[in-house]
Amino acid sequence: MQFPLYATPLPLGMISNKFDEHGLKAHKKYFRPVEKRKIYKIGEFEIEWIHITHSIIDASSLAITTEAGTIIHTGDFKIDHTPIDGFVTDLNRFAHYGEKGVLCLMSDSTNSYKEGITRSESTVGKTFDSIFAKAKGRVIMSTFSSNIHRVYQAIDYGLKYGRKVSVIGRSMERNLFTAIDLGYIQLDKSIFIDPHEVNKYPDKDVLIVTTGSQGETMSALYRMATDEHRHVKIKPTDQIIISAKAIPGNEGSVSKVLNFLLKSGANVAYQDFSEIHVSGHAAQEEQKLILRLVKPRFFLPVHGEYNHISKHKETAIQCGIPERNIVLMSDGDQIEVCAKYMKKIKTIKTGKVFIDNQINEQIADDVVIDRQKLADSGLVMLVIQIDKSEHKLISKPKIISYGLVPDRDDKAFSIEMEGVIDQFIVNAKAELLENARALENEVRQVVRKHIYRQMKKYPTIVPTIFMM
Amino acid sequence: MQFPLYATPLPLGMISNKFDEHGLKAHKKYFRPVEKRKIYKIGEFEIEWIHITHSIIDASSLAITTEAGTIIHTGDFKIDHTPIDGFVTDLNRFAHYGEKGVLCLMSDSTNSYKEGITRSESTVGKTFDSIFAKAKGRVIMSTFSSNIHRVYQAIDYGLKYGRKVSVIGRSMERNLFTAIDLGYIQLDKSIFIDPHEVNKYPDKDVLIVTTGSQGETMSALYRMATDEHRHVKIKPTDQIIISAKAIPGNEGSVSKVLNFLLKSGANVAYQDFSEIHVSGHAAQEEQKLILRLVKPRFFLPVHGEYNHISKHKETAIQCGIPERNIVLMSDGDQIEVCAKYMKKIKTIKTGKVFIDNQINEQIADDVVIDRQKLADSGLVMLVIQIDKSEHKLISKPKIISYGLVPDRDDKAFSIEMEGVIDQFIVNAKAELLENARALENEVRQVVRKHIYRQMKKYPTIVPTIFMM
Repeated sequence: MQFPLYATPLPLGMISNKFDEHGLKAHKKYFRPVEKRKIYKIGEFEIEWIHITHSIIDASSLAITTEAGTIIHTGDFKIDHTPIDGFVTDLNRFAHYGEKGVLCLMSDSTNSYKEGITRSESTVGKTFDSIFAKAKGRVIMSTFSSNIHRVYQAIDYGLKYGRKVSVIGRSMERNLFTAIDLGYIQLDKSIFIDPHEVNKYPDKDVLIVTTGSQGETMSALYRMATDEHRHVKIKPTDQIIISAKAIPGNEGSVSKVLNFLLKSGANVAYQDFSEIHVSGHAAQEEQKLILRLVKPRFFLPVHGEYNHISKHKETAIQCGIPERNIVLMSDGDQIEVCAKYMKKIKTIKTGKVFIDNQINEQIADDVVIDRQKLADSGLVMLVIQIDKSEHKLISKPKIISYGLVPDRDDKAFSIEMEGVIDQFIVNAKAELLENARALENEVRQVVRKHIYRQMKKYPTIVPTIFMM
Repeated sequence: MQFPLYATPLPLGMISNKFDEHGLKAHKKYFRPVEKRKIYKIGEFEIEWIHITHSIIDASSLAITTEAGTIIHTGDFKIDHTPIDGFVTDLNRFAHYGEKGVLCLMSDSTNSYKEGITRSESTVGKTFDSIFAKAKGRVIMSTFSSNIHRVYQAIDYGLKYGRKVSVIGRSMERNLFTAIDLGYIQLDKSIFIDPHEVNKYPDKDVLIVTTGSQGETMSALYRMATDEHRHVKIKPTDQIIISAKAIPGNEGSVSKVLNFLLKSGANVAYQDFSEIHVSGHAAQEEQKLILRLVKPRFFLPVHGEYNHISKHKETAIQCGIPERNIVLMSDGDQIEVCAKYMKKIKTIKTGKVFIDNQINEQIADDVVIDRQKLADSGLVMLVIQIDKSEHKLISKPKIISYGLVPDRDDKAFSIEMEGVIDQFIVNAKAELLENARALENEVRQVVRKHIYRQMKKYPTIVPTIFMM
């Protein structure tokens, strides 16, 4: 069963690029472009896409009108009164629904710890201007590939200072040209040069915009920093701008790429300027504005860890939402909401699964557990041939180990194991030496104990016994 | 050969606790307590310990006078003009050496991106006061175990509001009582209660100070948050204070413990207040003050990643150090410095080694590589018996795999492998079937190719062949 995918043109274009990339072209027939300020009847619901500002152009909130009432989902947002494209948040539609009555609001909690408001995307431009004005060599600006307005601003200042522009990074290039093709931004394509043309121009005439602001090791910036990029190597005269903040968890990798760039002698502007990057998410005053406009009966803070939605709850209480009308959800929770109540009704299982990146399939749990155990303590194989009439070893056991003892060619470990097995077989009861399965179990136990005594390790032990 | 360990009394006490913990009591005979403002002749050097402020009490900078000149090493520091114990940085000694002439300064770069100055430790007190004043139930304050002044301040406000104090966390307890025993802080021991006594007192009469501010899973706070602590479970009436900032890389684990605490319904003060935690490291203006007082000929920014020491270099250039007199070191670099020059002369090998935590020994590189490979793609064993006169299989091969196919009891994979081996043996040349070693290699290749075609994986393949 296939479900249609509804979106406004730019998001649909960006999703379409991803579908192309992953060989899902055939599924694009289920795409349904929508327009803002129109109401679409979809199944039981009437849905309006409402324009809202964010670090991605053409973002939407949703007003979903159901039999029980209207639900507003903000999506990722900030309230930018001076966005680059002039398309401000459609506050009036939020006000319209607020006035009619909203059953439930779901709102972005990412920055719920941040007081005040998030600065406008346009404030970054001034910082870019002052850096571009001083740059003597190339300027290399790195940001998220989805932040087209940031890329656009960098290009705008590049043009102001007479630079040609090379966009390096497949996802960034696709997003930018999709936005140009769809008319979201106006740029003459003649200003762009290919990565292999960068070295044909004087350094002071080149602007490179690229990905890798999170220190991703496969990104163009990382490869430039580590001298692995085909066309661009960092020079001491380069002015690099990292127009982003490390997403929690990425601090280490950002620091690493910074170290490489600085070791190459380049000038790097990162967190030196407070306005080199602004967030795409609402701070507390913006969260309050939406709460006050929408005046929902029930409130579900979304998009954030428990501590973020919990902080957003405090803000909502300050804005008059009764505490009992707010639910903090965990992943997998199912919520039921109607005029009388909102409550958790069920939790479905969620969590991480391992996907094999070669074949794009889930890896079975027991395979993961086996590999974990092998990684922790290695493995020992014991292949033993028993003469079951004579009740003795036919030949020396074969001992093979992985990930347990250093230098696998060293015979000491094998000789020790042979001794342990030999002694066990000599002393074993005759009937045990006629039952391969039972003997395997016994040998496993004996070897296991011996290795634990010697090495404080429990490797996977695999005896294979042939009775002959 | 044993080297003495010189330190002022508190650091020596804290190190002594660590030696006790790790069974190194016998080595404590090499401890040498020193006093500040005295000069010690040690080997070729004359060394003075200079008092400096930091998040650890009784921190020192070193002035090391050598034949070539004086080297000042700040150690970790900030310039706190209003420290809790009243012992301010001995700026006069820095001035004294600066006036006499300093060959080289090595200075803390941790906060070299931070403009202005780091706030005084005493500013945290006001925040504690306002939180304690409002708390209705227990107060649980978590910070670094080495930050004794922070712990002291919490206890001070605990006492002001009539609370008994339980210190939970072995390292914190040891550090605190070492500081009390040595007279660094004054606290009547009758105010302390044991963790098992916490539940005997009304909640509003209890202050718990504890470790775990970085979300460490073995810490007392984490165990309290996850209901695994013997004596303390988090209650909705608890006021928790996390008086720390996540060290880069720990953001995820701090967020996790926050989530647990909030899910227990407790009130958590973390980054809501700017003065709930202050750094122990100098910001730019303090770095400048040391540079200006010491007026070194050469400068080595230390304690930081490349991007931190690189930023500190910029600050030093602003303070009149010529760029050519600054070296940015990497781990392992050896520097030679004399009146004429400072330069890198050698680099020794450094890096991570894996230590087996059971036996406290280094794990050999090949063992690590083997385990990595097993973890990546698992292992297949093939035990094959060949009748070398008849040139055929004696019995079905035994196939055992780990970490490769789901459900090891499922025979499908074994049957497939048997087929591959069988077909290979049937078509193999007679002489190959008389040479176990050569045959093992061939079988490994055939199986390797087959598995890669089927699963896009290269597991470790271990054929064992018996010729009979």
